[in-house]
Amino acid sequence: MITEERPNPLRDPQDRRLPRIAGPCVLVIFGVTGDLSTKKLMPAVYDLANRGLLPPGFALVGFARREWEHQDFAKIVHDAVKEHARTPFREEVWKQLSEGIRFVRGELGDDEAFDRLRRTIADLDEARGTGGNHAFYLSIPPGLFPTVVGQLREHGMADQLPGRWSRVVIEKPFGHDLASARELNQVVSSVFPSSSVFRIDHYLGKETVQNLLALRFANQLFEPVWNNNYVDHVQITMAEDVGIGGRAGYYDGIGAARDVIQNHLLQLLALTAMEEPTSFEARQLRAEKQKVLAAARPPRDLAKHTARGIYGGGWAGGEKVKGYLEEDGIPADSTTETYAAIRVDIDNRRWAGVPFYLRTGKRLARRVTEIALGFKRAPHLPFTETDTEELGYNALVLRIQPDEGVTLRFGAKVPGTQMEIREVNMDFAYGGSFTESSPEAYERLILDVLLGDPPLFPQHEEVELSWQILDPILDYWADLGTRPETYRPGGWGPEEANQMLARDGFSWRRP
Amino acid sequence: MITEERPNPLRDPQDRRLPRIAGPCVLVIFGVTGDLSTKKLMPAVYDLANRGLLPPGFALVGFARREWEHQDFAKIVHDAVKEHARTPFREEVWKQLSEGIRFVRGELGDDEAFDRLRRTIADLDEARGTGGNHAFYLSIPPGLFPTVVGQLREHGMADQLPGRWSRVVIEKPFGHDLASARELNQVVSSVFPSSSVFRIDHYLGKETVQNLLALRFANQLFEPVWNNNYVDHVQITMAEDVGIGGRAGYYDGIGAARDVIQNHLLQLLALTAMEEPTSFEARQLRAEKQKVLAAARPPRDLAKHTARGIYGGGWAGGEKVKGYLEEDGIPADSTTETYAAIRVDIDNRRWAGVPFYLRTGKRLARRVTEIALGFKRAPHLPFTETDTEELGYNALVLRIQPDEGVTLRFGAKVPGTQMEIREVNMDFAYGGSFTESSPEAYERLILDVLLGDPPLFPQHEEVELSWQILDPILDYWADLGTRPETYRPGGWGPEEANQMLARDGFSWRRP
Repeated sequence: MITEERPNPLRDPQDRRLPRIAGPCVLVIFGVTGDLSTKKLMPAVYDLANRGLLPPGFALVGFARREWEHQDFAKIVHDAVKEHARTPFREEVWKQLSEGIRFVRGELGDDEAFDRLRRTIADLDEARGTGGNHAFYLSIPPGLFPTVVGQLREHGMADQLPGRWSRVVIEKPFGHDLASARELNQVVSSVFPSSSVFRIDHYLGKETVQNLLALRFANQLFEPVWNNNYVDHVQITMAEDVGIGGRAGYYDGIGAARDVIQNHLLQLLALTAMEEPTSFEARQLRAEKQKVLAAARPPRDLAKHTARGIYGGGWAGGEKVKGYLEEDGIPADSTTETYAAIRVDIDNRRWAGVPFYLRTGKRLARRVTEIALGFKRAPHLPFTETDTEELGYNALVLRIQPDEGVTLRFGAKVPGTQMEIREVNMDFAYGGSFTESSPEAYERLILDVLLGDPPLFPQHEEVELSWQILDPILDYWADLGTRPETYRPGGWGPEEANQMLARDGFSWRRP
Repeated sequence: MITEERPNPLRDPQDRRLPRIAGPCVLVIFGVTGDLSTKKLMPAVYDLANRGLLPPGFALVGFARREWEHQDFAKIVHDAVKEHARTPFREEVWKQLSEGIRFVRGELGDDEAFDRLRRTIADLDEARGTGGNHAFYLSIPPGLFPTVVGQLREHGMADQLPGRWSRVVIEKPFGHDLASARELNQVVSSVFPSSSVFRIDHYLGKETVQNLLALRFANQLFEPVWNNNYVDHVQITMAEDVGIGGRAGYYDGIGAARDVIQNHLLQLLALTAMEEPTSFEARQLRAEKQKVLAAARPPRDLAKHTARGIYGGGWAGGEKVKGYLEEDGIPADSTTETYAAIRVDIDNRRWAGVPFYLRTGKRLARRVTEIALGFKRAPHLPFTETDTEELGYNALVLRIQPDEGVTLRFGAKVPGTQMEIREVNMDFAYGGSFTESSPEAYERLILDVLLGDPPLFPQHEEVELSWQILDPILDYWADLGTRPETYRPGGWGPEEANQMLARDGFSWRRP
């Protein structure tokens, strides 16, 4: 039935569309002086408060080495909110929020500091009614996780008491290979039960990723062609136009594959390729993601179906830029890749024979993240050959950033000619279709942590499965011992990556 | 493979996309003083000339009762072109065209006049090099066809001589029921072989109708869901916002079903529902259209699945308008319907169980023609019920006028909410995607007549099959002897039509 859009004025009070409001709790952030904290976490906390999604019994605690008092930290939060928050600054919201802001000074190895932290949150439970519920956000390098989770256990803050909760939030990278990921998981899971560990992949908080689930499973139109009968190949791209910026210390030795493919791109692959879950309940969603990741494998011929590159210096976006090896803090003999492309095959009934190509890189032509399904040509074209000479393939493109939406590429007749077919695009933009503005990914994810709602967070099993796909490729590259091909800044990566697709009869999109 | 749009600079000289240019010929128009002639035919001839698609050896002959000389008629054509042509007026094009314009004065029954006509075109063959090829456009009431085709035969103008051609072009209505259509065809086909008879349905010259073929058969995306596994029902609409205007004499006793459903809407149904032809060669295209029309049948329960209406007086579009029965020249006791809706079922493997709803009417809310495929809901929704409460059905809408294009309606997640799905539209507009402007339907069709290229013209067999669907409905209405339900001008037709769909669990689109 074709009906009109009509909002329903009568809402069931049990309606899940009503705002979900967090219960009383304390959010503790370690690494509160870092970029992520000031640019993303603090503004997201304010935006949630401003949207009325945090309860009166909410408190924010910062932990760092700085010689700050509570009010110094509150000032830092205030400035971060003013500069980076998505929603307008409102004095009354800020006043309410700031009354629950505390700071604990100390080193991560310092027992006394953790004792102070314990007392601080206990006081908050008393004074602000935060109910003994605590979330610990580890915005710190993974090498420090053992220290912090150990301290939390030692000082009784990791205990799972009846009617209360204690959760830990960790950010990628989840290890640098399968072995280290297992080790890291061992450390965290020896202290926190897996249901209390929230692994943040901020791509999974983005609207379009969730829309991918809605698009695939709320519609009748797409699922029938979402398989190897119709799909030819899939391209998943995350391109950045910037270089590594000030992240030399983090980036070198990690590289593009570990930094992006292991988490973001393989998660997008899982969401694109998985079977329909019975419901979006966390357990069932994870089961499907794990199933498809377990069926995914690295290419058999690693020389043919992987490619890496390293950005050279030159001009990009009207600006003279340094090559990766000239960046501050990067050793001149580094072999870390800043571009990586791999082919992944999925050995199941739905996808056998359909290559998934994943690529990511820095200093490319545009900042763009997208999933593109390329469809086979129609099996028979009742047109003369010249009519369809310029006809490419149908494609369904899920645009994730910067302009979230969906593009459908298909062949249409050129007006006025006999019967010439050319490709056209049909677009749907989130921005144009909804008056609601999209919350930042971190708002959604922090709220989900505080609510204990886990569907969007990858489990350790998925992390392991991802490393199992990536490890052989990383080993192969390490064994080569060569430096990756240098590519021009502002372009689309190394020639090797183009050849990789050309060999299979495809070509990369220029999104 | 996903590739970029890139026009090919090197064109094969045999390329069918190169303009097809008509060969030498004379176009004779009967009924040259009518609206169709001045508003559509004359401008289309000029536009073809202006686009360089008519040869130097082209001539236009008008035939009518008026006391005109050649130059009077040329002046009429000149004014019609200036007022109605799509392309800019260019003196040199007009000069070239006007040199081949002639006028023949006479009654249709007048032997002498037809003798003059014969001499005129023989002179043109000599003077303008029109090669003995003649097309006769009968822009006259069908009751006069026997007279004209008889005269053409009598005066040797219908002879099919070797190396020359003689064609006749006729406009709907092709009869007013099956019997009269057969009679009419008998008259025409006794003089002209069926390959020389061109039945004009100007809807078939429109871009989007041809695009329907391109869309369906040049793409891999749509055909897999183009059947009763996925499609729920189909709505084909041609709505007009105007009344009958000055056409009382033609319209009364004919009505909406004969005027629009028999030809336009059943042709659109055939193009939407037919199987893929091996090629778009006329014979094969017709074979498929005939096959599907033969499988189409009127509803079993005529009371339930037909509806008619007659527009009342009132306000429409900010203007006070007369009801049909108050229009000049309409008898106050007329039972002619100005709105008709019918259900058609197609008894074949692809469409069994999918109702096709056809509707047309005058004085409706908007001028719009479209084909909408409504898809079933997804068989399982892994969402909670409230999430999808506002979710309608997927629909693919082929917009034919006024804004030619394609719209896809699907469910997407509402930003910022947990997982609320709402319907959104994704649009492709011909106007926005191609720089080429669309030629008028009549340009295309007249050129096809002159080229003898028949794929877009319905054959007599299709006309018969259409009447076979319509006749039982018209008989049923006639037997009722009641006046159709009066509907409000500026709305969407009679309540009876809404009930007709509601009974089947659907509702009409409000396009």
